Amino acid sequence: MAVQGVQLYDTTLRDGTQQEGMVLTVQDKLAVARHLDAFGVGFIEGGWPGAVPRDTEFFHRARTELALENAELAAFGATRRPGALAATDPQVQALLASGAPVITLVAKTDVRHVERALRTSLAENLAMISSTVRHLVQAGRRVFVDAEHFFDAHRVNRAYAHECVRAAAEAGADTVVLCDTNGGSLPDQVREAVADTLAQTGARLGIHCHDDTGCAVANTLAAVDAGAVQVQGTAHGYGERCGNANLFTVAADLVLKRGIEVLPAVRLAGLAATARAISELTGHPARRADPYVGSSAFTHKGGLHASALRVDPDLYQHIDPAVVGNRMRTLVSDLGGRSSIELKARELGYTVAAGSEPVARASARVKELENKGYSFESADASFELLLREVLFGQTAESQPFTVDSWRVTVEQRSDDTVTEACVRLRVPGSEPVVAVGEGSGPVNALDRALHQGLDTLFPALAGLELTDYQVRIPTGGRGSAAPARVLATFVDGRRRWSTVGVDENLVTASWHALLDAFRYTLRDSAGPAPEAAPLAEPVLFSPGG
Amino acid sequence: MAVQGVQLYDTTLRDGTQQEGMVLTVQDKLAVARHLDAFGVGFIEGGWPGAVPRDTEFFHRARTELALENAELAAFGATRRPGALAATDPQVQALLASGAPVITLVAKTDVRHVERALRTSLAENLAMISSTVRHLVQAGRRVFVDAEHFFDAHRVNRAYAHECVRAAAEAGADTVVLCDTNGGSLPDQVREAVADTLAQTGARLGIHCHDDTGCAVANTLAAVDAGAVQVQGTAHGYGERCGNANLFTVAADLVLKRGIEVLPAVRLAGLAATARAISELTGHPARRADPYVGSSAFTHKGGLHASALRVDPDLYQHIDPAVVGNRMRTLVSDLGGRSSIELKARELGYTVAAGSEPVARASARVKELENKGYSFESADASFELLLREVLFGQTAESQPFTVDSWRVTVEQRSDDTVTEACVRLRVPGSEPVVAVGEGSGPVNALDRALHQGLDTLFPALAGLELTDYQVRIPTGGRGSAAPARVLATFVDGRRRWSTVGVDENLVTASWHALLDAFRYTLRDSAGPAPEAAPLAEPVLFSPGG
Repeated sequence: MAVQGVQLYDTTLRDGTQQEGMVLTVQDKLAVARHLDAFGVGFIEGGWPGAVPRDTEFFHRARTELALENAELAAFGATRRPGALAATDPQVQALLASGAPVITLVAKTDVRHVERALRTSLAENLAMISSTVRHLVQAGRRVFVDAEHFFDAHRVNRAYAHECVRAAAEAGADTVVLCDTNGGSLPDQVREAVADTLAQTGARLGIHCHDDTGCAVANTLAAVDAGAVQVQGTAHGYGERCGNANLFTVAADLVLKRGIEVLPAVRLAGLAATARAISELTGHPARRADPYVGSSAFTHKGGLHASALRVDPDLYQHIDPAVVGNRMRTLVSDLGGRSSIELKARELGYTVAAGSEPVARASARVKELENKGYSFESADASFELLLREVLFGQTAESQPFTVDSWRVTVEQRSDDTVTEACVRLRVPGSEPVVAVGEGSGPVNALDRALHQGLDTLFPALAGLELTDYQVRIPTGGRGSAAPARVLATFVDGRRRWSTVGVDENLVTASWHALLDAFRYTLRDSAGPAPEAAPLAEPVLFSPGG
Repeated sequence: MAVQGVQLYDTTLRDGTQQEGMVLTVQDKLAVARHLDAFGVGFIEGGWPGAVPRDTEFFHRARTELALENAELAAFGATRRPGALAATDPQVQALLASGAPVITLVAKTDVRHVERALRTSLAENLAMISSTVRHLVQAGRRVFVDAEHFFDAHRVNRAYAHECVRAAAEAGADTVVLCDTNGGSLPDQVREAVADTLAQTGARLGIHCHDDTGCAVANTLAAVDAGAVQVQGTAHGYGERCGNANLFTVAADLVLKRGIEVLPAVRLAGLAATARAISELTGHPARRADPYVGSSAFTHKGGLHASALRVDPDLYQHIDPAVVGNRMRTLVSDLGGRSSIELKARELGYTVAAGSEPVARASARVKELENKGYSFESADASFELLLREVLFGQTAESQPFTVDSWRVTVEQRSDDTVTEACVRLRVPGSEPVVAVGEGSGPVNALDRALHQGLDTLFPALAGLELTDYQVRIPTGGRGSAAPARVLATFVDGRRRWSTVGVDENLVTASWHALLDAFRYTLRDSAGPAPEAAPLAEPVLFSPGG
C-alpha cells in the first residue's frame, strides 16, 4: 500500500518519562513540548491527567502557557472501569477536564489481560471501549485508541483482537494504534499482524513499538509498509525497559529512506538541535551513537576511513549530515593514527605536511596520554594545546603563567559548608600571584581563584566561563581510587570548547582541565605564535614549526 | 530458506574499538576475548595485525595467553595492494605472521570506491581479491571476505558486486560477508540484496551491519531470513558512528524469537553476565536500556504495570529474564506511585500493608527528594534507609553515630599532592570521635577517615568496601555550580549495593553517599530493629512500624 502521509505522534512526556531515572517537572514538560512542536510533530501526548497530579497540572498550565503551532495536545487515559458509566467515571471526566483536543485511550485487546489483569468479561471489555470512545467523541474530542499488547493479543486470539479494533473504530475512534507493549515482536510479525488487521477491520491504524528485541524502529517501519498511518515514538527512544521507538530515527528514516511525507512536515534540518535541546531538558543526554542526531553519528575514527575521507566524504556517509542538522567529525586517536591527527589539525585551522615528523610526534604523544586514561575526542582545546606544544615547542615553562602550588578545602560545620581554593602562580616579570576563591564546590572555587589571580594581568580571561562539567570514571571496580576523567566545557564569548584532565584524584583532574582552559584562552601569548590566530584563519607552516 | 545453523562472528576487538572514546589495551583485549569465548561465539576478530601495532602484539600474546574453547581467532586485513603480489605484500605477510587460523579480508565491491578511493581498475580489484584469497587459502587459512559497502555497491552496479562475491568464493573464501558499511540500509533492502546475491552467486554469505538507520539488528535478522549463515556484530553494538549490530541482541533474537541454533551453541543464560564483564573491561557501560542485557531491560516503573505485575509478571514480559541471566526489577518513583513503593519494599524483604499510611509517607518523601535531584532507582540501600526512617521512625538522632563536622583538603606543592580528610563524630555513650584519613582523592580520604574513626566501635564496618563511584551532573549548562549526583557502590562481604548523594558541591554529595553506606551497614543497630535482618528473611510488621 502506498502511504502518502504519516502522522508523527510523540509520547515522550508520558511513555518516555517511564524511563529509569527520568524525572521531569511541569516546567520541563512544557519546554519539551515547545521543542517538539517547533520540530513539527503532529501530536504531543502530555501525560495522564487525573492519575498523575503533575500531569493534571501540565494540562492546566498548557492552556495558558503553551501556544502550539504544529501539534495538537493529547491526553492519555484508560477506558472506563468495568461496570461503570463512561459519563460518571472520574478518570474519564479528568480526561475531558484536561481540555486536550485529542484523547488517547488505552484499551485491552488480549483475552488474558482482560480476564487476568482487568478481571472482567470479554464482552464488558468491548463495551468499555465502545462506550468510552463514544462518550468522548460526543464531547467533541478526537479519539485515538492504544490497543495494548496488541501483537500478543493477535497471536493468542486473533478474532477477539480484531473485535476490539472494530469496537473502537465503530464507536468513532479516529485511529486505532496497535501497541507492541511488551516489545517482543520482530518486523515480519508486525508487518503480518498490521496487514491482517487492516484487511479484517478497515480501521485507520497506528503503531507503537518498544525496543525489547532491538527492532522498535524497524517494527515501526514495517507497520507503515503494511499500511499504518500514525507512528508513535519518543525523543531519543526514551521509555520503560529498553525504551520506545526513537521518533527522531523513525522520522528521518521515513523522510530520507522511504520518501514518506510526515504530517505536519517535520523540519529535518532542525532534528539534531531539537534532540540536543530536549536532552538538556531531560538531563538524559542523547547516546553519542544515536542515528542521525548523536554527536558520533557522522564521526569517523578508523584509519581506513580517515585517509579515504580526505578524498571523498560522500562515499563514507549514508546521508549528508547537514540534512539533519548534524556534522561530520573526525576523531583524534591512535587507531586512526597519523591521518586522523592530520585531519583534526586541518579541522582546527592548522596545516601540517602529510606524514611529517611533528604529526608523528603528536600521534605518539596522544597515544601515550590515552594509555593514561586521557581521551581527546571531545576535548578539542586540550588537543590543540598538545598540537601547539609539538609544533611550536610550547612547554609549561613558555606558558604565560606557571603554578607553584594550589589547595582546596571543603569544610562542613553545623550544616554550613565552605569551599575555599588558594592558588600560587608565577607570571614572568611580575611578583608571585597569590589568590583565593570561594565556590559552591572545589571546581568552582579553583576557577574563581584562577580568575581572581589572573584576570587583571590577562584581560582576555574575563570572558572565559565554565559552562559544563562532567566526570567519568573510565573503568569501574576500583573504588574511589579509580582514575577520573574530567571533561570541562567553556565559552569564551565567541565559541564553546572543551578541555580534559585525568588523575586518580578527582580534584586534581579538574584542576588540569581548568588549567588547560586558561592556557588555551591565552594560547596566542604563549611562546612563538603563528602569524594569525589559527581558528580565525588557517596558518601554513613548515614541519617542525 | 530454512537456516539450521548460523555462525556468530564477533568484531568487538576490531570494529568495536572504533567507537568514540574506546581505548583498549592488549590486556583488555585478551580479557574480552576470554569472555566472548566462554559465552560461545564462533569467531573472535582480534584486530588488524601489521597495521595497528597493538593488534600485532595481541595476536603474538594470544598464541601463549589465550586458550579458546569455542571460538576461533580471526585476523582482519585488506586485500593486497594494486599491482603487488599477494605473496610479497607486507600487509598480507603480517596476516599470516599473526598465526590466526582465520583471516578476514576486507575487499572493495563498489565501483565508485574502486575507482575513486582505491584508484585502480575494476579488473585489478577482482584480481586483488582472487590472488589474496588464494594465497591465504594455500597457506592453510580459512578465509572470510568482508565485502565493504556491499549494499551501496549492489544498488550502483549489481553485476560488478556479484562478480566480486564470485571472485572471492571461487578463489576459496569460506564465506563472503556482505557489509552495510555506511549503515544506511533498511531491512527490506538488505533482504532483497542478500536473496539476489545468493541466487546469483551461490556463495555462502554472511552479514555485517551498522546502525545508522537504527535498524542494524533488524537488518541482520532480515539477512538471515534471506539465507545468510554468518552474522557479524559487536558486544553492546560498540562501533564507529552509530555502532555495529549488537551481537548480544542478535544472538538472543535468533535463539529465542527465531529458534535458530547459533554455532557453537551460545550459553544464553550467561548473556547478561558476559555483557556486564565486557563493559567493565571496556569502561563503556552497557546502556541500561539495552535489550536482554541492560539493567533496565526488565525493569518496570509505570503505575499501570507495577500494580498489574503483582498479579502476573508473565503478562508484562516478552521473555523470562532468567533465560538471558537478567532479572525483573521494579523502580521507586512517584510515577509508579504507591504501588511501586510497595513492590520495592517487598523486594527488599519488608511487607507493608497496601495503601497504608507509611507507604504514602515514603512516596511523598521520595517525590520531595527526587525534586532535589535524587534518584533512588539504582540506590537500593539509600531507599531502604528512607523506608526504615518512615517505618521505624529512625532519624539522624537515632543513628548509631552522628556527625559534628568534617573537612577535606587537597593540596599540591611541587608535583606532590596530598589529600587529607578529618571527621568529628559522636557515638552515644562514648567520647567525641576525631579521625583522619589520607587518600588518593577526597572520597577515598573521607572513606578512610570514617573507617578509622568507627571500625573499632562497630566491627561490622570492617567488611565494608567502596568498589565503584560514579558522578553524574544531571543537567548540563550550569557550570561547576550544577548539582552533582553521586552513586557509590559497596560490598559488605555478602552483597553489592549502592547509595546516592546529591549536592551542588561534589564533595558534599560524595559525603552523603558515604554516610548512607556506613549507616546502612549499621542499620540493625539503629533505633527499633525488626526481629530479623530484612534482607535475610522478610519481616512482617504493621503500618506505622
